[in-house]
Amino acid sequence: MVDTASRTETPATQGNPASEARVAPVPGKAASAPIPVPAAPARPDAPKVDVEALGRQLLGTWADIRLEARERAAHPDLQRIEGQSMPEHRQRVFEQLKILVEHGAVQKAFPKSLGGQDDHGGNIAAFEELVIADPSLQIKSGVQWGLFGAAVLHLGTQSHHERFLPAIMSLEVPGAFAMTETGHGSDVAAIGTTATYDEATEEFVIHTPFRGAWKDYLGNAAVHGQDAVVFAQLITKGVNHGVHAFYVHLRDENGDFLPGIGGEDDGLKGGLNGIDNGRLHFTEVRVPRDYLLNRYGDVAADGTYSSPTQSPGRRFFTMLGTLVQGRVSLDGAATAAAAMALTIAITYGTQRRQFNGASETDEEVLLDYQRHQRRLLPKLATAYAQTFAHDEFLVKFDAVFSGKAASDEDREDLETVAAALKPLSTWHALETLQEAREACGGAGFLAENRLVGLRQDLDIYVTFEGDNNVLLQLVAKRLLTDYSKQFKGAGFGVLARYAVGQAADRALHGSGLRRLGQNLTDLGSTARSVTELRDEETQHELLAGRVEAMIGEIAGRLREARKLPKAEAAAVFNRNQNELIEAARAHAELLQWEAFTRGLAKTTDPATKQVLTWVRDLFGLGLIEQHLAWYLVNGRLSPKRAQAVTAYIDRLLGRLRPHALDLVNAFGYTDAHLRAKIASGAEQERQDEARAYYAEQRRAGTLPVPEKSKSKKR
Amino acid sequence: MVDTASRTETPATQGNPASEARVAPVPGKAASAPIPVPAAPARPDAPKVDVEALGRQLLGTWADIRLEARERAAHPDLQRIEGQSMPEHRQRVFEQLKILVEHGAVQKAFPKSLGGQDDHGGNIAAFEELVIADPSLQIKSGVQWGLFGAAVLHLGTQSHHERFLPAIMSLEVPGAFAMTETGHGSDVAAIGTTATYDEATEEFVIHTPFRGAWKDYLGNAAVHGQDAVVFAQLITKGVNHGVHAFYVHLRDENGDFLPGIGGEDDGLKGGLNGIDNGRLHFTEVRVPRDYLLNRYGDVAADGTYSSPTQSPGRRFFTMLGTLVQGRVSLDGAATAAAAMALTIAITYGTQRRQFNGASETDEEVLLDYQRHQRRLLPKLATAYAQTFAHDEFLVKFDAVFSGKAASDEDREDLETVAAALKPLSTWHALETLQEAREACGGAGFLAENRLVGLRQDLDIYVTFEGDNNVLLQLVAKRLLTDYSKQFKGAGFGVLARYAVGQAADRALHGSGLRRLGQNLTDLGSTARSVTELRDEETQHELLAGRVEAMIGEIAGRLREARKLPKAEAAAVFNRNQNELIEAARAHAELLQWEAFTRGLAKTTDPATKQVLTWVRDLFGLGLIEQHLAWYLVNGRLSPKRAQAVTAYIDRLLGRLRPHALDLVNAFGYTDAHLRAKIASGAEQERQDEARAYYAEQRRAGTLPVPEKSKSKKR
Repeated sequence: MVDTASRTETPATQGNPASEARVAPVPGKAASAPIPVPAAPARPDAPKVDVEALGRQLLGTWADIRLEARERAAHPDLQRIEGQSMPEHRQRVFEQLKILVEHGAVQKAFPKSLGGQDDHGGNIAAFEELVIADPSLQIKSGVQWGLFGAAVLHLGTQSHHERFLPAIMSLEVPGAFAMTETGHGSDVAAIGTTATYDEATEEFVIHTPFRGAWKDYLGNAAVHGQDAVVFAQLITKGVNHGVHAFYVHLRDENGDFLPGIGGEDDGLKGGLNGIDNGRLHFTEVRVPRDYLLNRYGDVAADGTYSSPTQSPGRRFFTMLGTLVQGRVSLDGAATAAAAMALTIAITYGTQRRQFNGASETDEEVLLDYQRHQRRLLPKLATAYAQTFAHDEFLVKFDAVFSGKAASDEDREDLETVAAALKPLSTWHALETLQEAREACGGAGFLAENRLVGLRQDLDIYVTFEGDNNVLLQLVAKRLLTDYSKQFKGAGFGVLARYAVGQAADRALHGSGLRRLGQNLTDLGSTARSVTELRDEETQHELLAGRVEAMIGEIAGRLREARKLPKAEAAAVFNRNQNELIEAARAHAELLQWEAFTRGLAKTTDPATKQVLTWVRDLFGLGLIEQHLAWYLVNGRLSPKRAQAVTAYIDRLLGRLRPHALDLVNAFGYTDAHLRAKIASGAEQERQDEARAYYAEQRRAGTLPVPEKSKSKKR
Repeated sequence: MVDTASRTETPATQGNPASEARVAPVPGKAASAPIPVPAAPARPDAPKVDVEALGRQLLGTWADIRLEARERAAHPDLQRIEGQSMPEHRQRVFEQLKILVEHGAVQKAFPKSLGGQDDHGGNIAAFEELVIADPSLQIKSGVQWGLFGAAVLHLGTQSHHERFLPAIMSLEVPGAFAMTETGHGSDVAAIGTTATYDEATEEFVIHTPFRGAWKDYLGNAAVHGQDAVVFAQLITKGVNHGVHAFYVHLRDENGDFLPGIGGEDDGLKGGLNGIDNGRLHFTEVRVPRDYLLNRYGDVAADGTYSSPTQSPGRRFFTMLGTLVQGRVSLDGAATAAAAMALTIAITYGTQRRQFNGASETDEEVLLDYQRHQRRLLPKLATAYAQTFAHDEFLVKFDAVFSGKAASDEDREDLETVAAALKPLSTWHALETLQEAREACGGAGFLAENRLVGLRQDLDIYVTFEGDNNVLLQLVAKRLLTDYSKQFKGAGFGVLARYAVGQAADRALHGSGLRRLGQNLTDLGSTARSVTELRDEETQHELLAGRVEAMIGEIAGRLREARKLPKAEAAAVFNRNQNELIEAARAHAELLQWEAFTRGLAKTTDPATKQVLTWVRDLFGLGLIEQHLAWYLVNGRLSPKRAQAVTAYIDRLLGRLRPHALDLVNAFGYTDAHLRAKIASGAEQERQDEARAYYAEQRRAGTLPVPEKSKSKKR
């Protein structure tokens, strides 16, 4: 017979009151709530996260601005309506831009003299939060004010600011940022569009010489753009001075293209269909000389070119560097999307039950399964690392753009950090959104639960504003340059000493001496291995050591290639390309780990700090586990200690399980932000109702006897 | 000055004429084609793939049926129109089902007596190819004939076949397969819907007791379904005999729900929006006694239950086993989608150019970059492995369902293979579609290039017809059972000998003895390591040895848990869950590798066989590289040999590069199947035009001088 007495008592719901603040009170809900359901068991002495304090820390340097922006993003008028047709969605987002203007939400980065606030960091912080409302709104705003407007601001000079910015800021003139061409995306220097100076009329002639040079994928180009900043090869007196930006009028007051201008709609995309991406081409379109945005290069009336920056290469990178904010904001928005996805999937994972293992009558909560923890909690740890890294990144950005720390080196550092962090966080967002969607099963596939829509929109983040692979290669090149600087001007003595050092290092690591040493120490003691692995210094040494060793090894191989003819040298570089990109990724991971560790140092509440230390360890050891083969091959970890990495991760997952809900709640998203039915408490209600139904049947003795029990005559 | 003479000569396009058959002739195109563009250089003695012969081999056992189905899928009437609204798309797919009926394309699996062909393998082969036209069409057909119809066929008996199948086959009665509930997906045994027998009226009362027991995510439920097969707990005389299937009428001739039946539309989804998924619930809906599909269990008029299968557990799995064809077909369709994605991305990768490395004037073709090869070619190798594995799988399925080999063991094997292969191929499809989309940059994000749409539609394949993680756990359990059978009835002697064997094995591998042995042999000889690694037997031993060792180790840990109380035993199992699932994945990878190797043995053309051997090696070594840490920790590979794995993969990528286009063309998809503008030759035209433009400017001396050249006074 069935034990009808079981499960009549249930422990109280675990977690802080703050953890439940997210669920808005529903009339009559409290009265009908039948049986409180236990979260995973935690020992009574387990630490308790201060969700509110942790939440404040996660909001970072521009906390107030973020909170204000989130309040705005919670408003339905700014949110996406699922299932709208492309034209409806485009129009809606365009109208939403006007609401942002009315709220004064988008002018922070512009000069005070024009009604802005000269607040670069705060501007990006607010802008990132728009992803909550609709990624199309975020990116369309980015096109208008972060690209089109910012190009006028950063590449133009006083007169351009006065002439063009007010109408851009107010959205009176929507515009496109016409840089990418069908034939050239990440390699901007090679675009085909030309701007040839005509001394006779003192005009530039903008021209598209072939189909591959059509401007493409431009937001605002298909429908709304009246003007554009067009990037083209500046040619005067028979010399090509490289890529420069020009202000160009696209459409008349009826929305028709002006003479010489044509285009196409890019049509439906995999996501972001609230943005009217399109193509543009120019047939000898003439613009006045002073439509050249001339901060970094100018042409006199007689056609003489001048620039404050002599080297064309440096000039190009300086111009492009002013547009780094796109990458900054994608890092922040991608992190926010991952955090929302984890909030949805982990909330659902603490309510949804499936299969009974430990009990005859009760099914397990999904997040109690080890595999489910493995799928979600390491991604939660990464989202935390990214949150800390992003805030530091934004502080650095603000320092450069406010002029507080704007040396060439600061700018270069900022660009390298941007090229390192944006790829990792955007890829991580896609992986997390997908894992979250799968972790919610069929429910995750419904548009009403938001995961699929966010993933579709975020997809393009990994290739726009710089293709992730190309960006990581830039990082690797910078690492190689820094590495070679160690030897700049060094005599033979230094190089020889270095070579000896390298050889000794290889002998120590590569031949397994250190590994064998570990074997002796570790023998039979996983506990001792674990103690070492959770040590901050050990984690840092392992992560940093890998970057250094990888770069050192590649540099060694490339050094010999320098003497080779260009084609052969390129071939040697190409044979190392994959490893170079992996080295850059290792560097970016180290940056994230370091930022997390600095953030952890600032956490004051001891219990929160304890839990956060586990999260950081899960992040650090998760990275080491991903690259375990490298550590083994290079003698940095003994097989014994390598096994301890996985064993300790498994232990951390169990420890973090009871805190998972607190950790996602600390991100601070309300139901109005998440708008996912399965994370609204609906699943909990369904589970409670089903359990109450069976409990009542058992109590009343009306539950049919299972055939199995009957046949076994129990 | 610029060298205007460079690059006026270009070698002829490489590749077989067959490689170009895909591009349909365009009027006037041949005349305007300017400069033929070289593929990657291949040594003159390099082998040449016989694309046509390889293509025939890839089509597999049901080649003719596939070709016929592909011809059908090439017809625009059966294809998706991008950008349709959900209602339009649903209606279009519904109309397309009628076209399939007219073509006699969907009745192969049904009995000859009813106008079918009793051809189970051929039916699935044809069905899979529908994914080319529109995955919504594939899955909607699957709902109607593969689930709804197949349930009547396999779970019902003669009278059900005669009464219901003709109208199902002709689509006169569209229907739903009402198994999954909001609260229970993969755990079908625990569904809440009840069917209680009422002796007084000789009816079953179908009832939904709570919200979580609503049927959910059912294709045909929201709009088109008139009838359904409903799964419910069969209760008679106070005993629950477990899940059984019932035929139920849902809607009247006006499309309104019949009394007691209600439902909801699931609304917009992440993909497959041509299918009207919805929810159903039943309030004491009465159906006649003979609406029970009674092949595996019946209820007499007096309420007495009878079944040919005594064990309720076995009965349940037998019933569900008849529905394995869903998993078979998803494996095939997912493999087809991956193959299409690779055809699109690799075709584009051989035409698109970006950045110039080796030359001043010429940009590199994307697929010549090592990283690009690393991103796409291993996935191509996996798609090949899956293609071979799928054909064997389908042959096995056909043998079981035709009765040629239908023992309990055959059925169990088939289900295990299904549970192993479906997860890997569906996940691989998503990864490949995503990598292909990224490899095509912004163009990959446009709906017109198909990658995003296919990915959105295929997303749900990883969690429907059995969640991938749940399926892999089933595989692992089967592996554990097989493992423990070795000891069934064994006396103490056998177990002791086994324990000694295990210990010896661990000493040999675990303590590094074998690894050190490798060290001695390998010292300084990567060549020797590579020779070993490309040996078929070595690859097999490494892959199979890993599965055996993982299962053996987990079994050892679980054996001790058997004596524990249920809850503690479940906890021990849970602590091994992640590793169990990884072991199942390793097993599935081994199945794929073995199938690939058997396929390779049948390839006759020596050059094709050479190239295909490289592909198989890339697949095998790619798997070993993914799990390299395991091989190192467990002493199966020395660090030296582990490095050789990666080195040899890099070498294989270079070797396969010149054959990449042939290898994707062998999949045999025409432009009418791919329908991706970037893979249609448009990119090649753009590249040719751009190159011709610059060549002409150089020839005429009108190309502006780069500022850099000028300032350097070159």
